[in-house]
Amino acid sequence: MENILEELVERNRYLTSRGKVADYIPELAKADSKALGICIIDLNGQVYKSGNCNDRFTMQSISKVVNLICALEDNPLDKLLSKISFEPTADGFNSITSLETKNANKPLNPMINSGAIVTVSMLNGNTGKEKYERALEIFKKMTDNEDLKLNQDVYKSEKATASRNRALAYYMHSTGIIDGDVEDILEAYFKLCSLEINCIDIANIGAVLANDGISPITGEVITTPQIAKTVKAIMSTCGMYDASGSVAVNIGIPSKSGVGGGIMSSVPRKMGIGIFGPALDPKGNSIAGLKLLSDISKTFDLGIY
Amino acid sequence: MENILEELVERNRYLTSRGKVADYIPELAKADSKALGICIIDLNGQVYKSGNCNDRFTMQSISKVVNLICALEDNPLDKLLSKISFEPTADGFNSITSLETKNANKPLNPMINSGAIVTVSMLNGNTGKEKYERALEIFKKMTDNEDLKLNQDVYKSEKATASRNRALAYYMHSTGIIDGDVEDILEAYFKLCSLEINCIDIANIGAVLANDGISPITGEVITTPQIAKTVKAIMSTCGMYDASGSVAVNIGIPSKSGVGGGIMSSVPRKMGIGIFGPALDPKGNSIAGLKLLSDISKTFDLGIY
Amino acid sequence: MENILEELVERNRYLTSRGKVADYIPELAKADSKALGICIIDLNGQVYKSGNCNDRFTMQSISKVVNLICALEDNPLDKLLSKISFEPTADGFNSITSLETKNANKPLNPMINSGAIVTVSMLNGNTGKEKYERALEIFKKMTDNEDLKLNQDVYKSEKATASRNRALAYYMHSTGIIDGDVEDILEAYFKLCSLEINCIDIANIGAVLANDGISPITGEVITTPQIAKTVKAIMSTCGMYDASGSVAVNIGIPSKSGVGGGIMSSVPRKMGIGIFGPALDPKGNSIAGLKLLSDISKTFDLGIY
Amino acid sequence: MENILEELVERNRYLTSRGKVADYIPELAKADSKALGICIIDLNGQVYKSGNCNDRFTMQSISKVVNLICALEDNPLDKLLSKISFEPTADGFNSITSLETKNANKPLNPMINSGAIVTVSMLNGNTGKEKYERALEIFKKMTDNEDLKLNQDVYKSEKATASRNRALAYYMHSTGIIDGDVEDILEAYFKLCSLEINCIDIANIGAVLANDGISPITGEVITTPQIAKTVKAIMSTCGMYDASGSVAVNIGIPSKSGVGGGIMSSVPRKMGIGIFGPALDPKGNSIAGLKLLSDISKTFDLGIY
Repeated sequence: MENILEELVERNRYLTSRGKVADYIPELAKADSKALGICIIDLNGQVYKSGNCNDRFTMQSISKVVNLICALEDNPLDKLLSKISFEPTADGFNSITSLETKNANKPLNPMINSGAIVTVSMLNGNTGKEKYERALEIFKKMTDNEDLKLNQDVYKSEKATASRNRALAYYMHSTGIIDGDVEDILEAYFKLCSLEINCIDIANIGAVLANDGISPITGEVITTPQIAKTVKAIMSTCGMYDASGSVAVNIGIPSKSGVGGGIMSSVPRKMGIGIFGPALDPKGNSIAGLKLLSDISKTFDLGIY
Repeated sequence: MENILEELVERNRYLTSRGKVADYIPELAKADSKALGICIIDLNGQVYKSGNCNDRFTMQSISKVVNLICALEDNPLDKLLSKISFEPTADGFNSITSLETKNANKPLNPMINSGAIVTVSMLNGNTGKEKYERALEIFKKMTDNEDLKLNQDVYKSEKATASRNRALAYYMHSTGIIDGDVEDILEAYFKLCSLEINCIDIANIGAVLANDGISPITGEVITTPQIAKTVKAIMSTCGMYDASGSVAVNIGIPSKSGVGGGIMSSVPRKMGIGIFGPALDPKGNSIAGLKLLSDISKTFDLGIY
Repeated sequence: MENILEELVERNRYLTSRGKVADYIPELAKADSKALGICIIDLNGQVYKSGNCNDRFTMQSISKVVNLICALEDNPLDKLLSKISFEPTADGFNSITSLETKNANKPLNPMINSGAIVTVSMLNGNTGKEKYERALEIFKKMTDNEDLKLNQDVYKSEKATASRNRALAYYMHSTGIIDGDVEDILEAYFKLCSLEINCIDIANIGAVLANDGISPITGEVITTPQIAKTVKAIMSTCGMYDASGSVAVNIGIPSKSGVGGGIMSSVPRKMGIGIFGPALDPKGNSIAGLKLLSDISKTFDLGIY
Repeated sequence: MENILEELVERNRYLTSRGKVADYIPELAKADSKALGICIIDLNGQVYKSGNCNDRFTMQSISKVVNLICALEDNPLDKLLSKISFEPTADGFNSITSLETKNANKPLNPMINSGAIVTVSMLNGNTGKEKYERALEIFKKMTDNEDLKLNQDVYKSEKATASRNRALAYYMHSTGIIDGDVEDILEAYFKLCSLEINCIDIANIGAVLANDGISPITGEVITTPQIAKTVKAIMSTCGMYDASGSVAVNIGIPSKSGVGGGIMSSVPRKMGIGIFGPALDPKGNSIAGLKLLSDISKTFDLGIY
């Protein structure tokens, strides 16, 4: 298995030169654009690795998946659905238009920025700090990584250059979708985006989801089958920015990407996959990572459709 | 199996009273609002039926799936993707706004009206009549029904009350997305919407897709595995109007509904499902049919996520 | 006076080389791009001319003003306002988005294409032909030109390349804003756009409006002061496509332009101005004509603000 | 004259019961809903008053006009136009959609909230405090009121309930339309909205504009004729929220309203008019004030079209 992974990683590494590392914050621009790595964890807890699988990067949008798990744990579904929908959208991940014109001001889904900010606002805890700590607990379990930590430089950068996210959050505050202190909630959101991980950490997330909520490594029950299925369904329809539809067609594996270069995938009843490749395509997905995932899907016939 | 179906149909029939039969054309308004029926065809070609499974109704939007199969057969993928995308959208099925404001005037996917009209425009054939006949060939194979016929009354009604679809088609003609005679193409589109079917016919469509393009009844190779997978992926992300996301979460089976009351579902590698229940919910999906599908998904653990 | 006009025309003629003649229909592309002409008619019926003031061109969007006068004559105001508003918009003249998303599907004003098509639909007459003839009556009076005629070539071109206008009209038919036969109404609309005029004709329109409805040449009462004021107000806020605001700021004279190269202006209580210059700026207004109008406004202190 | 005003005020006072005092901040909800007052200042400096013309209220959106005068004084026109346009829009006064979808992220005009915030950001001064003080100078001159003061309660309320305005400002910061500290600029904006005035103060503003920049009372040159004309043109096309078009048609006087209940009007070369009536219509304009202005326009034939 690792031999095949090795071959697929090296065969696709040249694609990294066709993408561009995210540079909207200086810290992200420092990533090694040539990196490409992968980790697969199957339901027996077997771990397969290749390439830059120990390189560290930040969660970014992959955190939205764990935030959602946490919000589903912390809220009755009806309450959550009063603030957010689970519908895919063709609008960009940081679009504000649909908050004004559609869906009674509710974000369309938890995988776009507006939706993820609402999700964080609904976590247990009275303050942003408490919400962050509540989520961190689940993040540590999902990644099977007790040492999960904030990248302080990225966090500070995120916070300092966050006008667009502030606009989304204040807009939602003005329409009653977000309650509480906006800056406080944003702080928790930025922190969760700035958690530092590697491929193995996110392969773990994918594996827990693939195994319907139970860690295949520790055997711990982390969430319910219902929540795991919900999250995988939303990853499938909304997880890859406005390429979600074509990823479903071409790859067919529930996945969530982040501009840090990560892709976290979950093959139901089979395995979790973590990929890292910080050179991005124009839609914000890891350019070599996406091709690597596609090759893996075809090689092992992993598509769910 | 039929006993279980029988029980599930009768348990959910009361829901028909909470929906409303489509009435935008008089012919549809004549449907029996209490009807609820189902047919399941597994990959061994076994057929299970219950309720109003022989009632006849018209394809309506379910035809979009077969149109897409046909267009994928008739065109190189690149050519098709130059006119249409495969991305889900939160806009309504007959929205015109996104044609003006997004995606370079291309319809976002083939499951919304604009996309389906483009799909028909790309079928083999020089005239609308030829395109219709070309598609009809595939429709007959997919439904395993040589006698498939147009409901003339519905067709005439569709054609006479089609200002919104005309607006979409002329708009796309003005931006170069549709070539050729608009009225001619619309005629083919309306005819394909007006094909008369029953639950068994659409269960066949679902079964062929589930079986990666081969009819489990006749063994005939109707389309390629690649096309079957593509279509199922698009049904999953875009098939249930703007409830596609919540259907993925709650049911998890690739499905396409029509305002005639049909739901065509395909459980990959397992079965095709055809449901009929003309009382619709506000989003245009069969209200009792959707609950019936959800119960079946849970009872037989059919969700793909 | 004619000396000053002469000088201003020649001083601005070089600007024609910076614009582009409309070419969306072949007939318009034949216009002499170097042409620039003007006619002013004051309230004493005095006529001043300079440059290419006898060149013939088609009304195009200038017809929207006369259509509106006619619709205001033929309908109670309330009835008209149930189908259309009088509000300016930043959307393009042929935008369809706002019909779907704003103002209860009503066109925002009669100076954009959707609004002008509704306006024509509300003219007296049971058929498109009757509506056209009804309007033609008013067009002849407003231009003081009994010989006003259709340019058949332009009309045929308009009709043959009208997919965008068809989209607007069918959309409005689908929402109940337009009643009756869409093609029939469009035919009347295209004919009125294709009336052939010169600068003198449109200076007459401006002069009648400036004189609150009475022709300063013949003394005939053509419309009411109320209608004349309404029309001038709408020209001021909506007349120059999405440059209406900056024309108000820079020139300050109620005006309506057409892609045939005409600008019809009305200085309340002072004069009508007709300008012809078919080389257009990117917003669809005569590029040299607009500068000429600005110079005239400044020279004679004609701004109304 | 004052007799006529008296009669018109009393004739229209009953309309106050059909409107609603603004209540989005508690301080505004305290206004006397029955109040209706007017002040007219002609170009000889003659002052005519009637009704509740000494009642105090806050500027609110009327401040946008003086902000614009100030920004036009403080910036080359080109620089200002690189950040904002002068085009009317049918979008609501606090809409955010058009910032994302139109006009290269620039606010369409200075009379909507986004545009007014940009306007304030461009005033002379390095800090919000300096910008506020710079503007206050012009506000005092325009109102001929050295004692112009902030209503601290309204200001604090504005600032505390300003999520929508924050969303607009942060959005524009994210697209580079606004430079500098967002909170600092908003503070200046809120303060200028919270200046306390009466009818006489705003009649003065209108009179200075009517007199092309010179106070008819003191004779002081406050701004240029060019700026005065620009501002009146923008008031005409954009001043009355999304009723600007119908106010142009029905009243025909350049005007700007505020949710505090004020309407400031300027009849070019004739007079300034200040009206106060805090009961608002659904579009946010003084309901009785608008009818009073309409009656005055008709009685004294003040319409500019």
